[in-house]
Amino acid sequence: MTRITTERKYSGKVIDLDVDTVRYPDGSTGDLEIIRHSGAAAVVPFLDPPDAPDPRVLLLRQFRHAADGYLWEIPAGRLEPGEAPEVYARRELREEAGMTAGRIIPLVPILTTPGFTDELIHLFSAHKLSPVPTARETDEFMSVHEVRWSEVGRWIKKGEIRDAKTLVALMFVQCFVLKT
Amino acid sequence: MTRITTERKYSGKVIDLDVDTVRYPDGSTGDLEIIRHSGAAAVVPFLDPPDAPDPRVLLLRQFRHAADGYLWEIPAGRLEPGEAPEVYARRELREEAGMTAGRIIPLVPILTTPGFTDELIHLFSAHKLSPVPTARETDEFMSVHEVRWSEVGRWIKKGEIRDAKTLVALMFVQCFVLKT
Repeated sequence: MTRITTERKYSGKVIDLDVDTVRYPDGSTGDLEIIRHSGAAAVVPFLDPPDAPDPRVLLLRQFRHAADGYLWEIPAGRLEPGEAPEVYARRELREEAGMTAGRIIPLVPILTTPGFTDELIHLFSAHKLSPVPTARETDEFMSVHEVRWSEVGRWIKKGEIRDAKTLVALMFVQCFVLKT
Repeated sequence: MTRITTERKYSGKVIDLDVDTVRYPDGSTGDLEIIRHSGAAAVVPFLDPPDAPDPRVLLLRQFRHAADGYLWEIPAGRLEPGEAPEVYARRELREEAGMTAGRIIPLVPILTTPGFTDELIHLFSAHKLSPVPTARETDEFMSVHEVRWSEVGRWIKKGEIRDAKTLVALMFVQCFVLKT
């Protein structure tokens, strides 16, 4: 599949929308809608060592207009072009969860929904946390909560955590970091 | 947060783009970009009983323009308004993987990337599969592969599976279905 033309239909604050005309291997052409996104980083903040009994993590309770309600999420933020994902994971950890990390571990990169967007999110876990005094204050849109790992598991199983990046990050830790 | 107005900026085949003007609790207003999507269903097809030793699943190797390459994915498709997600899970299982299922189990619904879209994907696992003669043929864009569960785990750990819905579905099965 080769791209013949790109037409920008909308240029926005967070996303741009292009319609790409592509040529398929059989010679036919078609139009594909694609949301261009600069990518993001997201991080699971561990308050206790992961091998501690039932360690605590920090989760955000965040209002999302697109979901018309509150979601449980891990700290995350959009990347600026050319900067390292780990830098942004640390920035979001500081700004959203009020913490700095002694150690950041890359987990896995994910494509959130590749049928219509190129958004890539780099997932991390953060350890050896220390509070920072410059943290943002809790408001109507976002609050920070300490949650035990066993409770996280119950919430996932019951469908109470629905944000895909948060689910991938938490279950990746469960499957491949905690279970060694 | 209350929505004051919605302006449709783009109306497309797969997605629409709105800019919603909202009023925040402090009285200020702001504009939010949101991609409207009709939702989707996706399904993990099990060729063997999940409690069999190292069961096989079916994965698709699918070309994605937004990823500019091939991705490993589970069968998935967009919902039509008003129809039950399980119906669509069965349709995609038939059309993309060439199978009917004796049993479909709901896993969990996910919001793919709630910062800018309302897309919700209902995840399922499918069991007691039988091949259907009307299956689509493999082409340059999609092929169907039998993969052992242990191999799936290695691919996830190494970052070779990057599609979020596929990662959530596979790890949800690992954490909450297989490990009973």
